[in-house]
Amino acid sequence: MADEKEKQLGITVKKEEDMAEWYQQVCLKSEVADYAPVKGCYILRPLGYAMWEKIQEYFNRRMKYRGVQNAYFPLFIPESFFHKEAKHAEGFSPEVAWIANRDEEGSERLAIRPTSETIMYDSYSRWLRSWRDLPIRINQWANVVRWETQATKLFLRSREFLWQEGHCVYETEADCDREVELFLMEYKDLAEKLLAVPVIYGKKTDKEKFAGAKYTMTIEAFMPDGKAIQCGTSHNLGQGFAEAFGLSFQDKDGEQKLPWQSSWGISTRLIGTTIMQHSDNKGLVLPPSMAPNKVVIVPILFEETMDKVLHKCQEIKELLKGFDAVLDDREDYTPGWKFNEWELKGVPLRLEFGPKDMEADQVTAVVRDTGEKQFIKVHDLKAAVPELLQQMQNRLFEKAKQNLEKSIVEVADMDALVQAIKERKLVKTVFCGEPECEDLIKDKTGGATSRCIPMDNPHAPEGSKCVHCGKDAKWNIYFSKSY
Amino acid sequence: MADEKEKQLGITVKKEEDMAEWYQQVCLKSEVADYAPVKGCYILRPLGYAMWEKIQEYFNRRMKYRGVQNAYFPLFIPESFFHKEAKHAEGFSPEVAWIANRDEEGSERLAIRPTSETIMYDSYSRWLRSWRDLPIRINQWANVVRWETQATKLFLRSREFLWQEGHCVYETEADCDREVELFLMEYKDLAEKLLAVPVIYGKKTDKEKFAGAKYTMTIEAFMPDGKAIQCGTSHNLGQGFAEAFGLSFQDKDGEQKLPWQSSWGISTRLIGTTIMQHSDNKGLVLPPSMAPNKVVIVPILFEETMDKVLHKCQEIKELLKGFDAVLDDREDYTPGWKFNEWELKGVPLRLEFGPKDMEADQVTAVVRDTGEKQFIKVHDLKAAVPELLQQMQNRLFEKAKQNLEKSIVEVADMDALVQAIKERKLVKTVFCGEPECEDLIKDKTGGATSRCIPMDNPHAPEGSKCVHCGKDAKWNIYFSKSY
Repeated sequence: MADEKEKQLGITVKKEEDMAEWYQQVCLKSEVADYAPVKGCYILRPLGYAMWEKIQEYFNRRMKYRGVQNAYFPLFIPESFFHKEAKHAEGFSPEVAWIANRDEEGSERLAIRPTSETIMYDSYSRWLRSWRDLPIRINQWANVVRWETQATKLFLRSREFLWQEGHCVYETEADCDREVELFLMEYKDLAEKLLAVPVIYGKKTDKEKFAGAKYTMTIEAFMPDGKAIQCGTSHNLGQGFAEAFGLSFQDKDGEQKLPWQSSWGISTRLIGTTIMQHSDNKGLVLPPSMAPNKVVIVPILFEETMDKVLHKCQEIKELLKGFDAVLDDREDYTPGWKFNEWELKGVPLRLEFGPKDMEADQVTAVVRDTGEKQFIKVHDLKAAVPELLQQMQNRLFEKAKQNLEKSIVEVADMDALVQAIKERKLVKTVFCGEPECEDLIKDKTGGATSRCIPMDNPHAPEGSKCVHCGKDAKWNIYFSKSY
Repeated sequence: MADEKEKQLGITVKKEEDMAEWYQQVCLKSEVADYAPVKGCYILRPLGYAMWEKIQEYFNRRMKYRGVQNAYFPLFIPESFFHKEAKHAEGFSPEVAWIANRDEEGSERLAIRPTSETIMYDSYSRWLRSWRDLPIRINQWANVVRWETQATKLFLRSREFLWQEGHCVYETEADCDREVELFLMEYKDLAEKLLAVPVIYGKKTDKEKFAGAKYTMTIEAFMPDGKAIQCGTSHNLGQGFAEAFGLSFQDKDGEQKLPWQSSWGISTRLIGTTIMQHSDNKGLVLPPSMAPNKVVIVPILFEETMDKVLHKCQEIKELLKGFDAVLDDREDYTPGWKFNEWELKGVPLRLEFGPKDMEADQVTAVVRDTGEKQFIKVHDLKAAVPELLQQMQNRLFEKAKQNLEKSIVEVADMDALVQAIKERKLVKTVFCGEPECEDLIKDKTGGATSRCIPMDNPHAPEGSKCVHCGKDAKWNIYFSKSY
């Protein structure tokens, strides 16, 4: 039976050969997620949800530090709210899901939130009175629904997903700009420190910005198959929503003024990004900071020494409870079978402990990403484990960063751009800023879109010419295919 | 301006005179909640959501201790799933909200989850293989929708609310029974320890049990206006859902068996219960364990001493950061205005600090529930604050407990029952167990329903007769009106 299970358990395709199938198998077989019996939806199984909780924990701490408060607004949004901000309505209407129930004939249709700008700002307009009430910084953790018609991809494309949406209101444009960037930088830190996923970051072009925003900033990861994933966005909404929803405040000078607004969000996409970035042909690889159980202890059991070995394993588990160590003392599975299963499930550190280890007062430690083996004295464990985990965290980030850097190709003309996209690169170039040029680049490359204008170096060099039309270039920019 | 604001701020009716209006004012004016522009929905403002986070934090810890894992299942449920368990379908169908979007003509309708038994057990049926997979203990924190037609009551009755739903699967009936009770007792502890709300607890009658359950256990609080609030339920679902959704497992003996199932839930109702139980005519009273900020420091400012007083207040805030102390250093509000506002918002402990206090190296401490004033030396604060908070927590519970006990009246005939309900009591009596008798009691009392058969003493005394029909009584039971 164990043999048969082993076969089913393992990943049957290679990441480098068929990434789409590999990714799906990793998600399903590691029990991170499962498809739901409802089209376009999936289930966050306990291991996947634990990853989401790690993100929530980390980011709740950061938001509190930044003066953000959590709240919760209704799932339902009256249809008329969507139409108050024209571009927002236009951007979201194709993918809105509607409620069939009505209170009486002719009463307004209700949408299921695809995002909450409208329902939140309606309340803000009643809460905001004076400059003393500003800034408002409110976040909600919620489910949102977008009626996707494209194929479902676990964590990356689905009709319902979980996210956080922050919605802030400021007195001045400068305050707003500063914090749009602040929360983008918080996202960059989250991606790099928690998920060990390096990102490029900067402004979206006008074509790619959020529906209703003045401008949008983004962090983008780049996957080994040559596609970017938009991981988090931070929007300066300008004063358009304030105008549409009647937000105003009495300023210190006694005048009634329009405030500035921002919104920013990250979602369960980050789970998929983390999995795709780090995992391998044995299954899930979790950065230690994202692993609910950082250590698994596998006892090597023989009849005569079983009791003593298990007793010592219990002690080790107790010693490592700060790392939520699991002791796998199941009797009817071989150690080899357990090794495979825990590798599939991405536990960062495996400690093997058998009679020989007991004699030497040591454990055999195996790190998930490299598979490297080493012996650690039991009395050194408490110091060695956090160090091994930190090293693994750093190693995953460095490896991903090298991959990202290797993927970047700089081009100056369309032939080179088309070729680089064909080679699944993240293409850096210069660009005039016109939406028409973007459209044509997308056509000619078979789907590449602009990712961002790099924040640290936005302006194209003096005299440089747009990669597409040859007119004066305005921006440095990244193009690639994307999820 | 301050005067005018003060007037708007305060609660304008008395709890003992018009509890419905008082409750609504407390919720709105303390900024715990607000009505939404969508019928039947409300907004959890930051203070209200912080209370929910306290419940989540506490209960996540308890669930982890009990081996429960969090997960997340889709918001949408195919219509056919509801009809698999007949009683469940019957119980929920009047209040289900439906999605208008369909993928193609004739495709199945989708419900928005009113509860997740069906969608979860469909997955369980694919995950469960052998006795080794049992018990399954999975919980989700989620929003649910029930298309209420009665008037909205903040936290207590609304079309959408937040809750947690635990869904477990066991090998045997005994395992299931034991944990149905275990999670009920966890709820009782949560209510009493965290919310300082005493409860009665026990089994629901067959008439009042959950749609599809074998039996339901409940904890019930009793409000000062003579109405009970069902605060949490734990259901033994028997084997009916397992049969309907095809859950089975191979047991140790090699045979394929039907498992036993349970589900249990608590919701944002608990926030309303806490508010209604403890708050007073000055506004919100929060049990310290539920308060996001347990201490507010209000400096008494005069021009000459302002800097020194503020400096010292900062030190005190730093000293008390474990209690998330707030320093209210706003300049254009009087101390009196601030006192009122923080009382309205329910902060458990107020520390006043002015020039005289500075000279004496003390603060003036005022506890929210009693309004009692005392002087505390600054160097004693770190020890005194937790003690004052713990005393307040105990005092709130004891007071509520005395109210609960005073409200209980034991009756033996219908006249006394009707009279006691009229006097807004929680009526203890004995009862035959027949749904018809319950219906008639409800009619004759103008709406009283059975709350529970007390767990510690379920059986009616030998020879006692049903309060309504006079036949042999089976159960001790509580009746009252309810929210």
